Formats: sequence, structure tokens, C-alpha cells
Amino acid sequence: MLTMQEALRRLSDYWTSQGCLTWQPFNSEVGAGTMNPATVLRVLGPEPWDVAYVEPSVRPDDSRYGQNPNRLQTHTQFQVILKPEPGDPQELYLGSLEALGIDLSKHDVRFVEDNWQQPAIGAWGLGWEVWLDGMEITQFTYFQQVGGQNLDPIPVELTYGVERILMAQQGVTHFKDIAYATAADGRIVTYGEAFGQQEYEMSRYYLDDADVEANRRLYETYVAEAARMVEARLPVPAHSYILKSSHAFNVLDARGAISTTERAKAFGAMRRLMRDTAALWIERREELGFPLTREAVDTTPVVPEAAPADLPTTPQTFALEIGVEELPPHVVPQTVEAVREALTAKLAATRLEHGAITVDGTPRRIVATVEALAAAEPTAEQLRKGPKWQAAFDADGNPTKPLEGFMRGQGVTVDQIVKAEIGGNEHAAVAVTVEGRGVLDVMAEIVADVVIGLRAEKNMRWNDPKLSFSRAIRWLVALWGPAVVPAQVSDLVAGRTTYLQRPVVGEESGLRADGALVGRVVIETADALLPTIAKGAIALSTAERRAAVEEKATALAAGVGGSVDLAGETTLVDEITNLVEDPHGVLGNFDERYLDLPERILTTVMRKHQRYLPVYRDGKLAPHFVTMANGLCDDDTVRAGNESVIRARYEDALFFWNADLEATEADSFVPGLDKLTFEDRLGSVGLRARRISDVAGKLADRVGLLGAERETLARAGQLAKFDLATQLVVEMSSLAGFVAREYAVRLGEPQAVADALYEMEQPHTSADPVPASTPGALLALGDRFDLLAAMFALGAKPTGSSDPFGLRRAALGVVRILRESAGTPLESLTIRAGLTDAVARLAEQGVEVAEDAVDSALEFTVGRFAQLLRDEGTSADLVAAILPAADAPGRAARLLAELTALGGDARLRSLVATLVRTSRILPDGVAAGYDAARLSEPAEVALAEAVAGLPAGSAGLPLGDLLEAAAPAVAAAERFFEDILVNAEDESVRAARQGLLATLLAAAPAGIDWKALDIALG
Amino acid sequence: MLTMQEALRRLSDYWTSQGCLTWQPFNSEVGAGTMNPATVLRVLGPEPWDVAYVEPSVRPDDSRYGQNPNRLQTHTQFQVILKPEPGDPQELYLGSLEALGIDLSKHDVRFVEDNWQQPAIGAWGLGWEVWLDGMEITQFTYFQQVGGQNLDPIPVELTYGVERILMAQQGVTHFKDIAYATAADGRIVTYGEAFGQQEYEMSRYYLDDADVEANRRLYETYVAEAARMVEARLPVPAHSYILKSSHAFNVLDARGAISTTERAKAFGAMRRLMRDTAALWIERREELGFPLTREAVDTTPVVPEAAPADLPTTPQTFALEIGVEELPPHVVPQTVEAVREALTAKLAATRLEHGAITVDGTPRRIVATVEALAAAEPTAEQLRKGPKWQAAFDADGNPTKPLEGFMRGQGVTVDQIVKAEIGGNEHAAVAVTVEGRGVLDVMAEIVADVVIGLRAEKNMRWNDPKLSFSRAIRWLVALWGPAVVPAQVSDLVAGRTTYLQRPVVGEESGLRADGALVGRVVIETADALLPTIAKGAIALSTAERRAAVEEKATALAAGVGGSVDLAGETTLVDEITNLVEDPHGVLGNFDERYLDLPERILTTVMRKHQRYLPVYRDGKLAPHFVTMANGLCDDDTVRAGNESVIRARYEDALFFWNADLEATEADSFVPGLDKLTFEDRLGSVGLRARRISDVAGKLADRVGLLGAERETLARAGQLAKFDLATQLVVEMSSLAGFVAREYAVRLGEPQAVADALYEMEQPHTSADPVPASTPGALLALGDRFDLLAAMFALGAKPTGSSDPFGLRRAALGVVRILRESAGTPLESLTIRAGLTDAVARLAEQGVEVAEDAVDSALEFTVGRFAQLLRDEGTSADLVAAILPAADAPGRAARLLAELTALGGDARLRSLVATLVRTSRILPDGVAAGYDAARLSEPAEVALAEAVAGLPAGSAGLPLGDLLEAAAPAVAAAERFFEDILVNAEDESVRAARQGLLATLLAAAPAGIDWKALDIALG
Repeated sequence: MLTMQEALRRLSDYWTSQGCLTWQPFNSEVGAGTMNPATVLRVLGPEPWDVAYVEPSVRPDDSRYGQNPNRLQTHTQFQVILKPEPGDPQELYLGSLEALGIDLSKHDVRFVEDNWQQPAIGAWGLGWEVWLDGMEITQFTYFQQVGGQNLDPIPVELTYGVERILMAQQGVTHFKDIAYATAADGRIVTYGEAFGQQEYEMSRYYLDDADVEANRRLYETYVAEAARMVEARLPVPAHSYILKSSHAFNVLDARGAISTTERAKAFGAMRRLMRDTAALWIERREELGFPLTREAVDTTPVVPEAAPADLPTTPQTFALEIGVEELPPHVVPQTVEAVREALTAKLAATRLEHGAITVDGTPRRIVATVEALAAAEPTAEQLRKGPKWQAAFDADGNPTKPLEGFMRGQGVTVDQIVKAEIGGNEHAAVAVTVEGRGVLDVMAEIVADVVIGLRAEKNMRWNDPKLSFSRAIRWLVALWGPAVVPAQVSDLVAGRTTYLQRPVVGEESGLRADGALVGRVVIETADALLPTIAKGAIALSTAERRAAVEEKATALAAGVGGSVDLAGETTLVDEITNLVEDPHGVLGNFDERYLDLPERILTTVMRKHQRYLPVYRDGKLAPHFVTMANGLCDDDTVRAGNESVIRARYEDALFFWNADLEATEADSFVPGLDKLTFEDRLGSVGLRARRISDVAGKLADRVGLLGAERETLARAGQLAKFDLATQLVVEMSSLAGFVAREYAVRLGEPQAVADALYEMEQPHTSADPVPASTPGALLALGDRFDLLAAMFALGAKPTGSSDPFGLRRAALGVVRILRESAGTPLESLTIRAGLTDAVARLAEQGVEVAEDAVDSALEFTVGRFAQLLRDEGTSADLVAAILPAADAPGRAARLLAELTALGGDARLRSLVATLVRTSRILPDGVAAGYDAARLSEPAEVALAEAVAGLPAGSAGLPLGDLLEAAAPAVAAAERFFEDILVNAEDESVRAARQGLLATLLAAAPAGIDWKALDIALG
Repeated sequence: MLTMQEALRRLSDYWTSQGCLTWQPFNSEVGAGTMNPATVLRVLGPEPWDVAYVEPSVRPDDSRYGQNPNRLQTHTQFQVILKPEPGDPQELYLGSLEALGIDLSKHDVRFVEDNWQQPAIGAWGLGWEVWLDGMEITQFTYFQQVGGQNLDPIPVELTYGVERILMAQQGVTHFKDIAYATAADGRIVTYGEAFGQQEYEMSRYYLDDADVEANRRLYETYVAEAARMVEARLPVPAHSYILKSSHAFNVLDARGAISTTERAKAFGAMRRLMRDTAALWIERREELGFPLTREAVDTTPVVPEAAPADLPTTPQTFALEIGVEELPPHVVPQTVEAVREALTAKLAATRLEHGAITVDGTPRRIVATVEALAAAEPTAEQLRKGPKWQAAFDADGNPTKPLEGFMRGQGVTVDQIVKAEIGGNEHAAVAVTVEGRGVLDVMAEIVADVVIGLRAEKNMRWNDPKLSFSRAIRWLVALWGPAVVPAQVSDLVAGRTTYLQRPVVGEESGLRADGALVGRVVIETADALLPTIAKGAIALSTAERRAAVEEKATALAAGVGGSVDLAGETTLVDEITNLVEDPHGVLGNFDERYLDLPERILTTVMRKHQRYLPVYRDGKLAPHFVTMANGLCDDDTVRAGNESVIRARYEDALFFWNADLEATEADSFVPGLDKLTFEDRLGSVGLRARRISDVAGKLADRVGLLGAERETLARAGQLAKFDLATQLVVEMSSLAGFVAREYAVRLGEPQAVADALYEMEQPHTSADPVPASTPGALLALGDRFDLLAAMFALGAKPTGSSDPFGLRRAALGVVRILRESAGTPLESLTIRAGLTDAVARLAEQGVEVAEDAVDSALEFTVGRFAQLLRDEGTSADLVAAILPAADAPGRAARLLAELTALGGDARLRSLVATLVRTSRILPDGVAAGYDAARLSEPAEVALAEAVAGLPAGSAGLPLGDLLEAAAPAVAAAERFFEDILVNAEDESVRAARQGLLATLLAAAPAGIDWKALDIALG
């Protein structure tokens, strides 16, 4: 058995044998090996840099007093940087696993999409989590940007999680039991013996004992020194102080002393400092002449294989394979489509004859074939256009100057000139014969175009000077019949070598135990590509691969008398399908006692974290799961590995669940909320929960909520957000609300209260439903009104991409809840009312409120509503038409629906026309009401009667009914406009007529911008 | 060639193969690997702990912008802790050198005494610097105390200086040129490439750019957190904050922002914190049950070899070898003497007959032989004393009860009772025969007693439960003829195995290339011990070894036409003699250009740092040196190594010398003194220099110094201490004063000024002469008066062992300068006058002066004077007798000399007796002077006349002359006391008589305490 000490030495030996420098851990606390200057500074600029080192990484937030089996405030990273990335970092990496004694033929190693970013240091990259039997053991990233600087060359970073690798290898379930080293007397020293006390004591410091004021002082001093060092043009000490400030920040955070504002501010400061430091580092290295730059080595350029002498002349199959490193699952089908479209279009633009085009792919290859692709384009006649025929010859029939010029240009004589109709005109023209290009030339161009055109939403660079794609493109097979299509794109040269599933390291290719061909294989002809891939046990067809996943999962589940919910898991099955080339299902089990946990917790872990398919039996979750390994492995090994991963995760969850439920009542968590900082000017989460409850109460008053629902609201308000103080939610924050409901029921609360606590967090996302119950909806509104009011009260509006408090989501939540409340008592609630209540409550707490808080928040919220409607497909004009009603989204929504339903209804058009005309005629400031005695003409008397007959309080009526009722008035108005001169000379008559029109306008239903509606109706 | 990276790996591999844990460098800046908790905490308490790790050690003070070839702000230590020390750590250590590819048969490896201590963390230990060809490559320490805690078991600490080892092995002369690693393309990455920029930038931070206020804030915050963590009983974070505070302190220090008071305060704080943390660590480990404690393993106890069946009965040679690890040179002769005395005395206390006793030794063995030691003590008759003869028998001649009791006790009958004279009385007695003990029993006891009695001034413990000595005792050979003397002392068992010079690691013994026997050898008989040692090419005889050193050095020097100054270098030759067992001289050379430096700088480096004998030619230093290697080596290798060490040291010195002498005048350094903090309340060194100059001026006024000397004083005063601002003195502070003189002359100052600047630092030590010139002496006094006055002004008196400003040395300096000024104008100066001037000058500067400053400083200084006199052998009574004169040490010294010269002179005795009698009779408060008319008795009239005839102003006269002159008065006084009743009844008569006696007393020479002198004269 390898001890951890030996494992570290083997990793170090392996990577130094690959030419890496050994570096030392940094001498200030760092959160990750990435932060060591050997990474974060050295990846900048053009100098090559290969380095490997151990980095004990300190994360105060992960402190658990050494009690959690899998989490430590200091864990050991082994960090490797290869700059530039060497072209085969995955293979080198797999070699390091073998160096650790991991038999890759037995294990399931997968590269699972991971888009790494650390905005606090302006860094991002694309790559993977590497999974060993379901456990993430390494972060594998192609760095793209660090310190806001684009990297060139691109480095690859490998970060091994050493404790978890060793726990898996040694089969222990608590980090303390890891065999750390062998002492002089042969006795094993465990990890716990070596580091246990430190783990406990530093946890105490970080969680309980660190002095907040002292650490704030440290933080500020560090930041100031970092800034001074940037000024002094000394990036090395600047970086060191950035790290120190980051650690001090993390300590404060672990102590719960960082508010959201402070966090945003600190991140901003750090990002700026890191950007300046990075830029400075590059400058300084440049001043030093980039001392590590190597002399360029002349290498023989790779050229495509020459066409054979006996190149066929008959149509042949064309086959293209674009070999990539593991694409993210959703990128696979997108890329298949993109290649299909590009190939089809580009072929159509040639004159090559061809048969069917087929494209399909896996995470590691996109393969296209074209049947019967002709050897060359046919020879063709073409007319080249000269001057217009009339202008080509003079009166004597001799060529004019323009024609002479044309002939000179074409190198022809006048006898070769013909008359031809081109574009509807007669032109002098010349007929030329165009030779068809050979297939290799044409396809070389097409392949290059297709490859260079590959793009995903997120693209990265690697060691290729020009290409950019979702992941690195590593090889191209392009064959037409027996010949290589000599495509060349940037440094990538097409050939006839494919790479099947990865062989055991050290070999290039061979036969796997199950007879599958693996590794590097040379393809003789285009027709051989698909069969060769098939011999490699690679399911190239996505449909077939998906079917295989479903079939294997179903069979495995059936083996334990269960089933998988294929209909309910389409998204997950799609994802799994594109995580593997050769799906190999393994059934795993977990201890039944975890079934005491709610299914949602268990399945969340399975789906989101592990991409396992849950197994159900008799409609209930069974203690099994199906994982889909990639290719042949030792099932028992893989099963054991995956089982230990899920055990660890469930153990965590169960530990917190049980610890939390030692409480006897939900109220016991409430005081804990006062210890969580929400925002420094707004106080704790506890204060916020009480505000939410109070605002929800005021809203309940507004809608006259009484009885049982009112009681539910009151009780749920007392408990609002209590689950944020539970250990389980601290761990798995996505379960907030859900946990509140589960715990509330278990701690004796009525179901309605539990539901309201669950619902008050809804909607999380745009796909999420809004609260079903009124108490839930009121609490959800209270939550969001408080947040909006508070932030606008402080003048903290979201700007650009920065919205740290999620105000956009909050505003959308308000809008959706109110909009979907049509027909309930909540329909009458307005945004302004809610914001006014929330602002008042904040003022009660002593928060200084900006004067324009309510108006600004309202404007912001209505703006989100309008954007939502437009996003849903409502025309901007129609949205503008109902904007006056948007303060009451329920009503606005109803109006919108009615307007949409009425479509081009003639009565509506008439009404709108009448109202728009009326308002156009009427001068500003005329009040409703008139002296009926002054009206004498029949048309005006008729209008007055019609207006008087309009139903009072039209706001509540459906628009259709209203149109019906308004029809006489509309007709009367039309006559009025025909017969009557509003601006009568007699002033009193004029006043009466204007007053009559104003009365008509006032009677129109509220909430509609008629002019906008007029435009909308076109 | 081994790269540094490979070297670190080999060390790591070697020590882990010995059972050491691999540890990581600490994640805060540490000054040394010792400070890592893996050392400083884990050495505490009973748990075993073997660990090895790399520690990049940060010493801001060593920042040199990467320019100095040998000094770095961050250097790499490789640290090993073996706890308990395994019994053979030296051998294990040498194995590690072989692992590094160092061929020990070629190199000179020496263990040179080094008494490590770090008072700031309450730690000390004994051990060595390990020298490889003259270069210190490792610190090797048996820790005795850490954090103020006595250690048990004793750990051994090995600290390798990795850069210097690699520089030597790779033969490079600048750290930047060390081959650090081999990159992927086979290219070497140098140390400079890897760390150069960091070295430069961190130097900039530490020396120039660190914000002082920020770092003070950090320091204080860290100290406070450390203290809080001690309170919270969390030693791990407490320790971490101690380290952080220490680094912040070091940064401030490198920025020149730490005053002496602050330093003392900070060290005190750190010592206390470290002590509390250490105690707490042990407590906490105890609470945890000392988890790393191993089960005790039952081992077969080692027992001495049994005596042979045919044990000789005739006298045999006895041989004893006490095998030790390298003793400090001065301990070797002390131990030889101690063993000789103990053996002689202990043998004398037995009845064993024996011949000559011989004892001699080397740093690794003390060997004693006793010729012809008898096989056993002779059988002897002894009388046992009973009751007195008279009381033994009753009147009837029957035994009395007492005799019966005696007979019962002795088990004899009355016929065995004899009469014997014992102690001058007749006793009943019984004659018994005492069997002589066998030699093995007797000698076993003696050997054990001798060994357990070994002591030096500084003693240490090692893995033996009871023994304690200067260094570890590792083996005992004790033979009487062919038999082992079965001595056993604690865990040490005498045997017949000796260890000659160390063999190449891996072998136990063998023949070296020159035929010398090396390693472990079994000795057959006592007579074989000395010849065996001789066969090992070990010069056991100190005299012979010394002669060999002299002879070899002389021959090597002669080889280059030079000589060594054997007469002048006796101390050094003695030291060298006891650094080696097998002196092997190697002549080394250095570049002649270094001869441009003053000889004192060069020879200081040679003698103090390297123990080289300087070579002279034509009375001048020649560019050669002789080093005395221990045993056979490859001369070229050893020469090259030593040459590179001295080159590095000289290069440093020359660099600073030249850099300093780019100045055009000495004055240009003076402003630099204002940047050096002396003490926060007293200001800079610049301010202090000006005070010194002023005080020296006031003293010059007091002694009426005029003319050229006065001018010299004035100019030297302007330049006082200017060399403290030179780079050379910053580097080699022991050259302060010397450098001032050298630079002053070179920068155009008169020789007298240069000499005064040199002399003002004298005396450094008690062996040092006092200033020869009056200006020099006045400046030296000014310096010391200022220091004493300042510290007593601030109330900062030395306490116990704490004397951070060296006030004891300053006081002694004052005393010695004044005492040795007898016969010069300075003789008249008093300590009080100097202190008064100095205090006045401080007050001028605005320093608040404690009221008792002058008195306290005077008392302290006089106290040192008295102590000095007592230490020199003057009886305490005689010292007390001249104490009244001690304010003027010149005069006090003269008085003392006169009193000593007079010895028991009768006139003196009479004078003293008279004066003492007079003062006894006289009531307090009687003034001199009397009414002569009241005196009528002849004796009183005679006395009055004699007193009147005494010479006026007796203070100036030599005491001998004064005795002569006083003789009549003494005689008259004697008669007076015989004839006259002082307390006459007539009051006026009594007043006159008392006045007369008071007049007599007043005429006595001042400065002498007559009562004390009376006691002193016995």
C-alpha cells in the first residue's frame, strides 16, 4: 500500500522526470496551488515554465474540527503547470496515475467538463474534473486568462486532490485514517496522527476564535501594502500581499463577518490588484528580457501525405474524423450539426458530385462521411461578360474601345466574341472552358474551412497558433478512398491515423481484454474508418449510444428488481450519452439507512454531482444507482469506487440532517440567523427575516387575509429562512426552502406552515413555479420587496453585469408571482404598495432610505416585467400599451391577454381610434364634466347621453364586455366628430364640448396607453 | 552533476528511508526550519518524532538584491529532527552526505563546536557546525531546551544549508549560477533564473519599500492574536502568530526601524509567548494521551562481558577509553585533567597497588592507562573498636554489658578481644581479616564514578537517562589485561570495542588508503589499546598532536617561502590541536588582490571564522593559509573547498571596503548615523555620537586639554562612530573602531584623529588595552558615560542576566580607563563628574532624566569596580577599605597599590589603630577645631602640637611619605589615649579634647575606610 508520503514522492518524481521544476509550497497561507507565484505569475507572458509542487491549501470555510471525514481546513494539493501545454497533457496525466500505482485497465477514468473560473483573480480556463470511479481526483484546466491577461502560450494546470486519491486507494473512509508515512520502526503514522491536532485547532481559530477586528485590520493593511507594491513596480511582494489579504478575508468569511457588500468590494479590490500585478509582472519580465525564453528549435514541418500515383478516378467515399479532447456533453450534438451544415453547404458550393452525407460523434470525435464523392469537378463552359452589346461595336461594326479592352484582358480576338443575354441585357461575351478541380484540392479546402469554423458558446485556445474551440482538436483523419485529403489548418495536418479509446499507458495500441482495438490505428481507406471505430468498441452513433445507455441502465436496474425513470431523466440520459464513447453500465449500491433522507436530497446528489441514474422500486427510491463508465473496466473496482464516493456524500448529508434534527423545535434555529451577516448597513439575516415577515403581514392586511391562512402566514413568518442556520443548508445551499419544509414538518409545524416556508423561496429560476398558497406567495413577495427596497434604499442599483444581490431575479419573482395571481386576492396588489411597505419597514429599523427608493425600485421592476414580456414574444408596442397597468402585473397580464384575444377586433379599433382622436383634439388640462345646458346639437346631446350610459368603474370589467358597452358611445363619438366643431366660438359652448370629450376619456378603461395600442394595432 | 532539485530529493529520500516523515515548509514566513511546528512544537514532550523537510528560510536582514554571491533573503534549509536522538546521529548524518554524492574519503569533514541558542524562543542546545572543507554546511544540535521547557527525550536537529552545499559541489561562486533543475528539453534552469527576480524584489521590499507603520501594525496585531490564542488554549494558531510576529519584527529590523529597547521588549514578549505556547502544547498533547507514543519494546539488556575463567592473578595494565562525540577544543585538556585527578584519587582510596597513571586525549576520546595494576587488593588485618578498656570489664574481670553487646555484634567470644590503643585511648577491640576486593570490581566502580563525574561548563543530555556532559559519551573501553572491566554507568556498558577514525559509511572498519586502521576495532588486551589507537593514525598525545600541527604548518608555509607565527598564535594552535585527531595540513591560497585589505580584516576571518593559520613572508601577510584537516583526504579537493570559502568571505569584505571607500570624506557617512535607531527615547545613533563628542569636550575642559590634542578631540568627535554607517561594519560589527581608523586615514584625516576614533571603542574586552591617547580616552569615556547616564536616566538598569545595552561592560570600561590613567591628567577625573556631564547633556537634548540617575549609575559603576578588584584577587576587606576613593578609580588604584606594598607595616598598623580608636571614642557630629587654651595636660598638648605639624593636603602624598609624616602624631595620640580622659567632667575641657581628636581624624588621608582597613590588616 502506498502511503501518502510515497504518493507525493511518486508524483514529484514522475513530473520531474517529465522536466518539471520542483517548487516549494508558498510561505503564506494560500487557498489553492494556483495562487502560488509558481502558477499565478509564471503562467503569464511568453516564457516556458514546467513546474510541479505540493501545496497545502488552506480554506478556513472548510474547517470542521477534523470531524468531517472528507473536509479539512488544510488539504493537500499537488500542482502541475505545463507551459506551453505539450500537446498530449491528457496522456501525460494518465501516466502520472499509473505512477501512483493505479491500474487504468481496471478503473473508470473520465474527463468531465469543468469550466474553471476565479473572477477574484480575473482568471478562467476550460477543462475537466477528472473522475476516477466517480470521484473527482484532479482539476485539469487549460488556462486562458489570469489576472485579466490573455495567456499566450496556453498553459495546462493539473491539480490533484491528494487526500481523496489516497483515501480511495487505501480504502479508508475518514481522512484521519490515511496511512501518511512509515516510521523508523515500521509502524504506520496516520494522517490524523500527523495533522489531527492542527486540523482541530485551526478549525477552532477559523470558526470560533479568530478576532474579527484584528483580521479586518490585517486585511486592510495587506491590501494597502499590495497597492503600494504595485505602485513601486514590485509584483512579487504585491502578489504576496494579495495572498495575505485573501487569507484574511477568508478568515473573516469563515467567522461569518463578511456581508455581501463587503464581499463584492473585496473581490473588486482583489481583481484590480491582481490585474495590475499581472500586467506589472509581464512588464518586469520583459524588462529582464524574458530570461527563460528558449531558443526556437528548427523542426521539420509536418506535411500532408502526398497523393498516390494511382489516385482513383472513380467516385470514392470521403471520411473525415475530427479528433478532440473530451467535449462537454451539450457541445457534442451541436458540433455534429455544425459539421453537417458546413459540409453540406460547402460541398453544394462546389461542382463535386456526391452521395449521402452522414455526420455523428462522441465526446472525443466528430465523424463525417460522404458517399460516392466524385474524383473531380466536371469540366464546364462559362461565359465571361464584356461590355453591353450596343456599346461593343461602333457604327462601322468595329470593336469599340471598351470591347478592345475586354478582348485584351481575356486574350481573345474579335471572332471569339459572342452575343449573350446576361442579367436581362445583351452583352458581348466570350466562352471559356473551366477545368474541374480535383477532389483532394477541393476537400482539403473544405476540411480546413470546416475545422477552422468550429465554435461553441465557450471556446478555448491551446498550443495551436490559430485554432479555438470548446476543447483542443488533436488530430484529423481525412481520406478520399485510399488517399489522404491534404488538408492543413494552422498546425493541424490531416492524415490517416486515428486514436481509438486510450490504451494502457506505455503502449501505442493493441487489443483490450474484450477484444476491442485501442490506441493509435492507421486507416487504409475512407471506407475503413467507421468499421475501425466500431472495432474500437466506440458507439459513434449518438442514437445508438443513447439506446445502449438506456438499455444497460434498464437491465442493471431490473437485476435488482427495479427500474430507471427514463422518461423523467431525458436530460440526464442525454448528458450521460455524451460523456462516454463506449457506455459500460455498473450498478452500485448504497446503504439503506440513507433512504431515511428525503429523496430529493439523494437524487440531487446522484444527478447533479455524480450523473448517476437513480433506481426506483415500487415507486420509491431504491438503494442503488447506475453509473455509466467509459469502456471496459473491472466492475467491482469501479463499483467500489463509486459506492465510496456516494457514501461519503450521503454520510455528509446524513450527518448534517441528524445533527440539525437534534433540535426540538424549528424556533431553535432562528437565533442563529442573527449571527449570519446579510449586509453591513442592513444587519443580519435574522433582521432581514423579521422584515420579510412584517412586510408579508402588511401585504396580508392589504388583501384582507384572515383566518387559517393568516395564522399560517404569522407562524411561517416567525420561522422565515430558519433553514439558513441549519448545517445541511450551509453545506448544500441549493436546498434552502426545501429543507425548511422538511425540517418544519419533522419539528411539528403544520403542513401549511411548512409549505409556506418552502414556497417563500419560489421561484428560484424562470422554470420554477410560483408559490401555490397565499401565505407562501406573501412571504415570497415580502422577501423580494424587502431586498429591492433595501438595495434601492441604499442606492445600490445593479449596474451592467454586476448584480451581487440578485435584484433582477427578485424583481422577476415579484412580477411572476403577481402576474400569476390573476383571479386570487393578490391580484389587486401593486408593486408600489409592496415597495412602500418594505421601505417603511426599513425606515422603522433605522435604515436611511434614499428619497427615490420606491420610484427607482418600481421603475426597475416594471422594466424587468417589460423585458420579460418582450422575451416571451409580446411586441414592444403592445408591451408599451399595457405599461400603465404594469404596477399591478396581474391586471396588466389580464389586459394583455384580452387585447391579444381581441386581436384586430373592429370594435376595439374603433374605440382606440375614437380615444386617440379625442385626446388629440382635447387641449391639455381639460377636466371631465360639462354644463349639459350648453349642449344643443343632436350629435353632442347623443354623445352626452351615450357617455352617461357607460358603466361606472370600468376597470374591473373584462375588455370584451367593456367594448360591448362602449359601442354606443364610440358610435356617438364618431358622429360627434363628423357634425360638431369642438372649438365653437361661444366660449361656454366650447367649454361644454371639451368637458364632454374629457368625460368620455375619463370613462375609458384605465391601464392602457391608447396611443401605444393604436400603434400596436397598426 | 547533481542539481539542487535532485539534491533535495536525495536528502528527502535518504531521511525518509531512515523512517522520517516528510513535512512541508510552513505557510508563513519563517527564519529557519527550526521554527516550523514540525520542529519547535514536536520536539516538546515525550512523543517520538522523526521528520525531514525543506524550509525556505526568510531573513529580511540578509537581503542583498540578489547581488551578494553568498547571501539571500530566502535561503533553503533542509531540516531533520530525530527524536529521540538515535544514538548514532553523526553516522546517519554522514550517510546523508554520501547520499548527496560527497566522497567522504576525499573531503575534510569536521564537527566544530557550536553552542546553539535562540533566547527569543527560550531554546538552546549543544552541537556543532559541520564543516566540509572549511565551509559550514550543517548545523547539528542536540536540543536541550525549547520554549523554556527541558526536553526529554533529547532530539537532534540537523539543518543543512542547501545553497552552500550545492555551490561547493557544483563549483560555482554565485548562488545564481547553481544548477537548480533540468528542464524538459535538457537545458539547465539556474537558481538565478528560478529565484532571481524574487530575490531582488523581496530585497527591495525588506530594505527599502516596506511600510514601517503598516508592519508595526501587523506586528502588534500578530502578538495580540498569539496572546489570545494562548488564552484560548490553542497552541497551534498561537505558534503561527508568534511566527508571523517574528517575521514582521524582522521586516521592521531590516528597515532599521527597531531600537534597542524595542528589540529587548519584542524578544521578551516572544520568549514569554513561546514559553506559554510550548507549555500549552505539552499540556494539550497530554490531554490527547500523547498519541504518538510507541509501545515500549522489550530489548535484551546489554551486560558487560564476563570475566574469563583464567583471569590473571599478576598485575596487569589497565586501560580506559571514554569515547565521545567531538568535544569543544577547550574541553579536551580539561577533561584529560579531570580524568587524571579522579582516577588518581579514586585509586589512592583503594588498596590496589599500581604503577604510573597516564591520561591523554583527543576531541573524540579520553584515554587513561595504569601500569601494573594489581589483580586484587591485599588481604588486611583490621581492628574493630569496642568500648573503652576500662568500661569493658567489671571489677571481676567479666565483660560488661557494653562489651557483651559489642561481642554479639561482631560475633566473637571474649578470648578474641584484644586491648588496642585507638585515638589515644585504650579500647577493647577485635582483630578481623579483610579480604581484598578483586581488581575488576574495584575498577568497575571507579570507571563508573569517573564517567558519571565528567562535567564541563556547559553540559548537555542525550539519549542516556542519567549522563550529562559537554557532548555525548558513546562508548567505553575498560580492560584490565585481557579482561573487560565490567563497568556500567547508566545505559553505557564498558567493553573492548573502540572506534577509530570514522570509516567510509557502509563499512564498519578497514584500512584507509594510507594504511591507517579505521572504524570499529576490538581490543584484545589493555596493552593493545594505545598501539591500536596509534595504528588508527590518531595522535592521542596532545603534545605530540600540537607538535605535529606546528611542524606541518611550518613545513607548508616554508613551501611557499613563508612562515607561520607560532609564538603569536598559541591560542589558535591549541584550538586546532583539539579540533583534530589526525592533523593533516593543507596549504591554501587566496587571490593577492585581497591583500589590499588591511591584514586585521584578513586574519580576523582566518582565525575566528576558519581556524586557518595565516602565512607571513618578509613580515607581511602572504596570500596563503594553512588549514588542518582531520585525517587523510584528497588535498586538492580540500584545498579547493577551503579556497572557495575564503574567497567568498574576502569577496564580501572587499566589496564593502571598495563600496565604502568610494566616499570622498569620512563626513559623508555621518548623516547615515541619523538613520540608525539607537533607542526610541534617546533617538538615533547620530544623536548619540554628538552627545559623546560633547561629553568628551566637557571632560576635556575639566582636565584642561588644549592645543593639538584638543583639536584632535574636536575633529574625532565630529566623526565619532561614523563607521557604524559603513557597509563593512554593518557586516562585520566586530571591526567597529578599527574600520573607523582605516577609513579615516584613507579619507584624509590626520593619524591622531584616526587613532582617537579607533581608541574610543577600547577596551572591547577585559583583555583589550585602554586608549593610549588622551583624545581617544576622553571619547571612550564620553561614550560610556553617555550610555550609563542615558540608561539610568531612563530607569533602565540591568537586571539579572538581562543587560541588553551592555552597561556592565561600559562601567568596567570607565573604571579601567580611569584606573589606568594614574599619572596622566585624567587621573583627577571622577566617575561622578563624567556622569553629571553626561546627564546634563541628555537633559539638553530633552531627555527626561530620573532624579537618582547620577547616584544610581555611580553606585552601579563603583560596584563593578569593586567586583573587578575582587575578581583580580584583592580581598573584599581591602576593596572595602579603598571604596571611598572609588569615585576616582585612578586614585583608588594608587591607594590600593600603596596599601598592598606597605603590607603589614607597623606604622600603618599604628596609624590605623589610632584612627579607628579615635573615631570610636568620638561621638557623632563633633567638628574639627578646639580651644587650645583648654588643653593643659602634656599628652594633650603634645598631641595638639603633633596634629598641627601634620602636612596640609595629605591627599596628594604617597601613603609611605604620609606614614612617615604622621608618625609623631600617631605616637602622640597613643600617649594621649593612655594619659587622658577624653570625657572630662569640665564641659569645655571635654569639648576641646573631642575637637582635638576630630582635628586629628580630619587630617587623615581621604579615600580610605579605616575601619575596613583595620579589618583587612587583621
